[in-house]
Amino acid sequence: MAEESGVVAADLPVKRPREEEADGAAATMEVDGAGKEPNCISAVIPGWFSEISPMWPGEAHSLKVEKILFQGKSDFQDVMVFQSSTYGKVLVLDGVIQITERDECAYQEMITHLPLCSIPSPKKVLVIGGGDGGVLREVARHTSVEQIDICEIDAMVVDVSKQFFPEIAVGFQDPRVNLKIGDGVAFLKAVPEGTYDAIIVDSSDPIGPAQELFEKPFFGSVAKALRPGGVVCTQAESIWLHMHIIEDIVANCRQVFKGSVNYAWTTVPTYPSGVIGFMLCSTEGPAVDFKHPINPIDSDENLSKSKRPLRFYNREIHSAAFCLPSFAKKVIDSKTK
Amino acid sequence: MAEESGVVAADLPVKRPREEEADGAAATMEVDGAGKEPNCISAVIPGWFSEISPMWPGEAHSLKVEKILFQGKSDFQDVMVFQSSTYGKVLVLDGVIQITERDECAYQEMITHLPLCSIPSPKKVLVIGGGDGGVLREVARHTSVEQIDICEIDAMVVDVSKQFFPEIAVGFQDPRVNLKIGDGVAFLKAVPEGTYDAIIVDSSDPIGPAQELFEKPFFGSVAKALRPGGVVCTQAESIWLHMHIIEDIVANCRQVFKGSVNYAWTTVPTYPSGVIGFMLCSTEGPAVDFKHPINPIDSDENLSKSKRPLRFYNREIHSAAFCLPSFAKKVIDSKTK
Repeated sequence: MAEESGVVAADLPVKRPREEEADGAAATMEVDGAGKEPNCISAVIPGWFSEISPMWPGEAHSLKVEKILFQGKSDFQDVMVFQSSTYGKVLVLDGVIQITERDECAYQEMITHLPLCSIPSPKKVLVIGGGDGGVLREVARHTSVEQIDICEIDAMVVDVSKQFFPEIAVGFQDPRVNLKIGDGVAFLKAVPEGTYDAIIVDSSDPIGPAQELFEKPFFGSVAKALRPGGVVCTQAESIWLHMHIIEDIVANCRQVFKGSVNYAWTTVPTYPSGVIGFMLCSTEGPAVDFKHPINPIDSDENLSKSKRPLRFYNREIHSAAFCLPSFAKKVIDSKTK
Repeated sequence: MAEESGVVAADLPVKRPREEEADGAAATMEVDGAGKEPNCISAVIPGWFSEISPMWPGEAHSLKVEKILFQGKSDFQDVMVFQSSTYGKVLVLDGVIQITERDECAYQEMITHLPLCSIPSPKKVLVIGGGDGGVLREVARHTSVEQIDICEIDAMVVDVSKQFFPEIAVGFQDPRVNLKIGDGVAFLKAVPEGTYDAIIVDSSDPIGPAQELFEKPFFGSVAKALRPGGVVCTQAESIWLHMHIIEDIVANCRQVFKGSVNYAWTTVPTYPSGVIGFMLCSTEGPAVDFKHPINPIDSDENLSKSKRPLRFYNREIHSAAFCLPSFAKKVIDSKTK
């Protein structure tokens, strides 16, 4: 059996999206049904979506599909949304689960508040990727923030999120948000030195459009765009599956970032191996102790003002996220010191 | 499609076990091939094992199977061992993954050292369940321990572990270990009051032979068998999947254990939702602060003496394990106070 990314059994009822269902996305949609998708094979659990990828060979997580809500092909990737039986709506890019309504809180809250709660009064924040809007929703909880720039490469992700994930795309409604559709690498190169207090890199895996976001030149641009003592948080894969990738990321960051360099992780059931990690680094300048957050949000007045309370993040789990299993600690410590 | 526990595609090459391959187990083995197992349906990824259960509806984790090494039916459950493509050998009971060689360290080390590192000089330890021997292997790292009793209901689990998982069943070789094959509930009732410093309940899910191990009368027997200030650690499901079960367990424990009552969790990729939790309780007597371990093992001389160093546990991850996501903390705190 060929092992390609993301497969749905061919006998699923596929809804033919109408043009008005996803603004801007219709022009490039493929609506012939899952059975004819190039990545699709039929030898999976009928009626289930199975996430099979060379990034995690020999294992697959499957979700039961109630209905496919959208299937499209953007200039960058395959985009799919389905209603799952027990995880709510699910966003899939190039066959890999990005978001489920049931567990998205863990990823969005941690990738955002780990960096923003570690520095005093963040004002200017940049999000690279994150086109679903979930990180924006979380950044917007911070009342000190005055400007939230976001650069997402794929307009279809933004459109699809606005249509199918209103509780996530709500982040775009904040008046502080400036959305730029474009290449994050190019965007960062044009940013004046020292612009941002925090940069959050909410990327997919380093196969496909996000590949450059895991490479050293990109980290160099990030460091330049941050003020002294500014912070970055990047999606950094799973300690159970990708220690070799993590080793490289940590080594690159150690060379680029002259402040502190740390690895944290959290649980996200629908990500491969059930965990996802983050690199948290600061530039030369005022010291940042990521493990002891100085800008709490969970007891903040923001919380009561917010339409939706925090579901996952709190100050205890912030510090706990930096405690690593011995097998990972050994490798990561050897690269950060 | 019927949703029953644990399915392997029917076209797998099934090895016919010879009698000498599993002492004591051969008499009750079914060797007709996976395709004829009562729980088996063919509509899954061919050549893969899929873990489908009403305990986690709508999702399934699948592992690619290289070879089925053992299939048997004991008096209590279906027992299967297969060689997976990327997780080493895998032990399956009633269709549910219990152990993979790749990630067993997380479960075995945490369920053992969370309780034993929380009290000074544990001497007498009881393990209920744990027939694979992994918890025994971890208990045996503690040089203060003089007596390790274990009561496992299913001899086939012990035999199969000794045959296929020598790095786990090595725990049985420790001279301090006394193995009793029998019902843990009955065993505990006969234990003289105040016998043990620590009891570890390494059970399967509360469907099948382990059901009673999640009920209040059992916790009462545990409390009685512990010395004042003694501790128990029980497998306690996933915060992502089973908050209603956890709520009940916590409420039961709060009534039964007059010392402290805590919930901790860790990552285990091949368990549903990628996490597993533990209830950690102490009886009336010397206070036990589980969150701040007083009996460290990771810097101990035991470590260097051991044939296999700790892979997962360390004192930082011990404390971190008690930090809960907000959605779980809210529910659990309401039951422990």
